[in-house]
Amino acid sequence: MNAIDVIIAKRDGRRLTDEQIDWVVAAYTDGDVADEQMSALAMAILLNGMDAGEIARWTAAMIDSGERLDLPDVGRPLVDKHSTGGVGDKITLPLAPLVAACGAAVPQLSGRGLGHTGGTLDKLESIPGWRATLSVDEIAAQLADVGAVICATTPTLAPADRKLYALRDVTGTVESIPLIASSIMSKKIAEGTFGLVLDVKVGTGAFMKTRERARELAEAMVRIGADHGLATRALLTDMSTPLGCAAGNALEVAESVEVLRGGGPADVVELTVALAREMLELVGLDVDPAPVLESGAAYPVWERMIAAQGGDPSAPLPRPSHVEELRADRSGVVVRCDAHAVGTAAWRLGAGRALKEHAVQAAAGVLLRARPGDEVRAGDPLMELHTDTPAAVPLALAALAGGVVVADEPVVAPELVLGAIR
Amino acid sequence: MNAIDVIIAKRDGRRLTDEQIDWVVAAYTDGDVADEQMSALAMAILLNGMDAGEIARWTAAMIDSGERLDLPDVGRPLVDKHSTGGVGDKITLPLAPLVAACGAAVPQLSGRGLGHTGGTLDKLESIPGWRATLSVDEIAAQLADVGAVICATTPTLAPADRKLYALRDVTGTVESIPLIASSIMSKKIAEGTFGLVLDVKVGTGAFMKTRERARELAEAMVRIGADHGLATRALLTDMSTPLGCAAGNALEVAESVEVLRGGGPADVVELTVALAREMLELVGLDVDPAPVLESGAAYPVWERMIAAQGGDPSAPLPRPSHVEELRADRSGVVVRCDAHAVGTAAWRLGAGRALKEHAVQAAAGVLLRARPGDEVRAGDPLMELHTDTPAAVPLALAALAGGVVVADEPVVAPELVLGAIR
Repeated sequence: MNAIDVIIAKRDGRRLTDEQIDWVVAAYTDGDVADEQMSALAMAILLNGMDAGEIARWTAAMIDSGERLDLPDVGRPLVDKHSTGGVGDKITLPLAPLVAACGAAVPQLSGRGLGHTGGTLDKLESIPGWRATLSVDEIAAQLADVGAVICATTPTLAPADRKLYALRDVTGTVESIPLIASSIMSKKIAEGTFGLVLDVKVGTGAFMKTRERARELAEAMVRIGADHGLATRALLTDMSTPLGCAAGNALEVAESVEVLRGGGPADVVELTVALAREMLELVGLDVDPAPVLESGAAYPVWERMIAAQGGDPSAPLPRPSHVEELRADRSGVVVRCDAHAVGTAAWRLGAGRALKEHAVQAAAGVLLRARPGDEVRAGDPLMELHTDTPAAVPLALAALAGGVVVADEPVVAPELVLGAIR
Repeated sequence: MNAIDVIIAKRDGRRLTDEQIDWVVAAYTDGDVADEQMSALAMAILLNGMDAGEIARWTAAMIDSGERLDLPDVGRPLVDKHSTGGVGDKITLPLAPLVAACGAAVPQLSGRGLGHTGGTLDKLESIPGWRATLSVDEIAAQLADVGAVICATTPTLAPADRKLYALRDVTGTVESIPLIASSIMSKKIAEGTFGLVLDVKVGTGAFMKTRERARELAEAMVRIGADHGLATRALLTDMSTPLGCAAGNALEVAESVEVLRGGGPADVVELTVALAREMLELVGLDVDPAPVLESGAAYPVWERMIAAQGGDPSAPLPRPSHVEELRADRSGVVVRCDAHAVGTAAWRLGAGRALKEHAVQAAAGVLLRARPGDEVRAGDPLMELHTDTPAAVPLALAALAGGVVVADEPVVAPELVLGAIR
């Protein structure tokens, strides 16, 4: 077997054989296939596609590149959620404690942010003392005790994916449905959860800009789940506008706490409940999560989850050294608050990173003071820009240009949940 | 400017801008664009193509990555030939002295072989004492004195191409017409010749397997030549059967000497004369090369050309330690002698290399004893396998399986010259 033959097969539009897939993924993990060969193959896959059988095999090969998590019985059914990433998407934070409060166990292995989308671990690290890295024994103990864990992926889980993702990130080969689907699903299957709910984002702030592409990705992932015996569902949800009012690490923690205490923005509550409902149904728990969330009963689970990982849930969150308001230059209705523009602004303010090696600012981000549909008067605040590096403000304002629009007549906003694949 | 944006533009089927092309070629040459990024871009170019304007700019950027040869006036018009590579394609060897004997000067900067196609320098290095590497001053002096030079490309000529070719070779991105055309033409234009004749091979032994692809490549190269003020013509020639009877380094030198002395196989003579005629016409020399070749008048030029580079044209050529005959297993007519099969056999016997670092055997190769159209009787020799490593013979025989066929009825062979682009 050699790399050039595999590349040429896919380049020329042929189906890769099981043997070719097994070999090339293992050889790449071991360093026997070079980065420049894998990137050429990734581009050929992106442009010529893979069929469902190839995607399933590619996923299996990525799982086999490492070890499965092999969690012991924790006394509750394991169910997990994955979001394809959006702006202000802090849903994991209230969702994991809520689903645990309803009786399931949620092993939420998460990543860090890159570019304009935030990362769950970056958000939680704004809580003083909280640590992302747990051993397998610590994960199992916390699941049995608290019912929810949000922590970093263990290094032995699908190492081929880690290496391939870093390569795709610098070679323009991220946006391939087969490669995205197998990347996500290999980690989730290796994690050993019983059920999985996918939140596939659609819109300017998401990887998938159209509903068709999002549906295609969701269907590919649900099929991979089925092929591997993992009960999988997907919701397609809107990401043309940020979720809630907060985009940034500590800002999103604060908003999540509001939701866990029974308040918070309506869209964050709606999506948290919708995803919780799917997760509970998947594992056969007949509990309505809406009243549980509204009652504040998930908040004590949050406190225990944060404390179990060294965090102080009652400590004040970091505050930025600099806050600048962006004000409406006319009266009217907010008709547009673009997720990509807000996400990029938050990133420029310091909430995100351009390179994996960079640190993020805990307090940086954007806080919306008016959301689409809200009426404003000229001079009213539209949003606050939070940062520890005031020099970044002009960059954030440039990113927002045209992204926030006030007009005379309201427009009809898209539904939050656009569809489901079950 | 950044590499990912350039990759994504081509990946998504957009035209690269002049600025993008200039930047990415220069940055790759300098090491600021990584190999894994350039290989992804090369795959996107291979699959999505480049238009004539992009190809012209890409070629210019490769030329600008190094220095032009800048030869002084040598008192004769400079004209060059390039072949896309085939099996038994020793035409450069008789052609350069012949065209010099007709009054032009031929600066033939050549390469080494890789895989089943031979390399002109490898062939000439089978002549005791001959050296491939000359300084620019030596090239100029030899052109003025002898009229013909065959030597290695100088390292400052299109360094971007050298780096990119090595990368394409290991990433399944060789077979892209824009990349092949710009690779060949960047070196030829940087060389500073006045006219250029291209021999674009078609058939099993060539890179281009179909006449359509060969014509497309030829047209792309002629257009690049025109864009850069280099008078360029192309012949499409058949490479379904080896040229002449010899495939291998010393074997091809010996056959070339036969041709230079007025003998040799008819097809080698025909193609040498056809290419010489195009080259002489391009530089306005009204000389018929056919009688010059037949008279043996080009042979003294060959002797002087070899001697000027340290070679002894009268020294005996290396002989193999082992010769094995392949015999006909039935009587009939040779209807097929496949160029790819013979080229691969010669390569396996030691005439070629699998990796750039490998050495070649001077005496190894295949000598055809019967060519398509020849009648044979059962037991007659079809070919000789020459090698210094007898263990390679079974590999060569395996490569030849099905490649040489004797049947009852002759078949019509394709013409040698299939078309011209002028």
